Amino acid sequence: MSKKPFLHTCISPALLHLYDISNSVVVIIDVFRATSTIASALYNGAKAVIPVDSVPKAIEISKRIDGIAAGERDGMIAEGLKHGNSPLEYPREFIENKTLVLTTTNGTRLLQMALDKNADAIIAGSFPNLSAVCDYLVKQNKNVILGCAGWKDRFNLEDTLFAGAVISAIKKNFAIHCDSSLMAEIMYMKQKNKVLDFAPQLTHYHRLVERFGLIEDIRYCLTPDVANILPVYSDGKLIVK
Amino acid sequence: MSKKPFLHTCISPALLHLYDISNSVVVIIDVFRATSTIASALYNGAKAVIPVDSVPKAIEISKRIDGIAAGERDGMIAEGLKHGNSPLEYPREFIENKTLVLTTTNGTRLLQMALDKNADAIIAGSFPNLSAVCDYLVKQNKNVILGCAGWKDRFNLEDTLFAGAVISAIKKNFAIHCDSSLMAEIMYMKQKNKVLDFAPQLTHYHRLVERFGLIEDIRYCLTPDVANILPVYSDGKLIVK
Repeated sequence: MSKKPFLHTCISPALLHLYDISNSVVVIIDVFRATSTIASALYNGAKAVIPVDSVPKAIEISKRIDGIAAGERDGMIAEGLKHGNSPLEYPREFIENKTLVLTTTNGTRLLQMALDKNADAIIAGSFPNLSAVCDYLVKQNKNVILGCAGWKDRFNLEDTLFAGAVISAIKKNFAIHCDSSLMAEIMYMKQKNKVLDFAPQLTHYHRLVERFGLIEDIRYCLTPDVANILPVYSDGKLIVK
Repeated sequence: MSKKPFLHTCISPALLHLYDISNSVVVIIDVFRATSTIASALYNGAKAVIPVDSVPKAIEISKRIDGIAAGERDGMIAEGLKHGNSPLEYPREFIENKTLVLTTTNGTRLLQMALDKNADAIIAGSFPNLSAVCDYLVKQNKNVILGCAGWKDRFNLEDTLFAGAVISAIKKNFAIHCDSSLMAEIMYMKQKNKVLDFAPQLTHYHRLVERFGLIEDIRYCLTPDVANILPVYSDGKLIVK
């Protein structure tokens, strides 16, 4: 019997150092909204998404390559940019054949951390590309870290629910001995058919909906497989695998 | 209408820096087994429990004050010590009127961190003293951090379940806007009447039961109010309030 690879869930970027990243596929999870936006842009024909850690870098790179500079800080379009971190800002008629240069509060930061720690591979996951993520992880047959971006290092439930959705779909293919994964799966199974009804209880929902009215963003970010492609990090860019 | 104090759940010592400790009562939670052992020893008449961060310090202090040096590393009685971190090692006939000098892997370390960050008050909580903890927190009417000791900075579910038990009992007295607390409460409410049946799924259960056969410890640590006193930290010691 061949040994199953490990799967762990890391519920905050501040805990990433506890895991063996270099032998693992790291799934960057930032449901509200970076990894939902990345899936949306690539699904709608973007050539690539370049994740960067600052607004000046987003502007500089986008100018150099004739791309779209975009990003958010604390839930709003970042100062100095015209485009934000909403998956609905990037329909095909706008983004097709263009490159998005994106900076966000949590998701792009976690991706940079996984890069710095020499992850074996990095992909981006959210409900819009749930099946593509699961299919890839099963085929790879390597150790997996489900990396929740959280909110400024705090635990959040939407990223954990997505981790739970992945675990419930593919757990028979992995060795899972971690309370974070157990919790994520139980939380997801409990909310499974009513994630949208549960959403108003989340702190990040309040931030996005009550302050910015982004209920359509929330709906998109929590809907499985509406942008079912796989963003894989390669050579500085997220591209469709 | 008076403003309710805040309550947050910190699910790993590695996230403690995210919270405003200095204005809060910090509840140290290490269900398996430090805070259960502390409750047990004090309930059975120990004069005090002195938490220390190393075995040599436990030996040195216990010699000086004629106390009992005790502690564990990785689930076992620490090398050089005769007494460990089991709540069942400290019945009244052994511990009454003595001082326990205790060092553990996770709980005493978190307590030291809360001290270093100038917590307003520090108490120790586990299922054996659930009601005493809840009564105290409601009476204090101050901000609360439920600090889960976890396992070497990893999230664990038994500490989170205890946090959820506290939240479900006293939430109407606090302002709670944190996904960790929401998750803890949902997890607890789901397992509420079957925490012992759920325990075999926990990573720490395997460590303690399969490796060391400590099933009676597990039962004690998960039973509400069997040692219902309140350990409060004061001047280097945990004493009964």
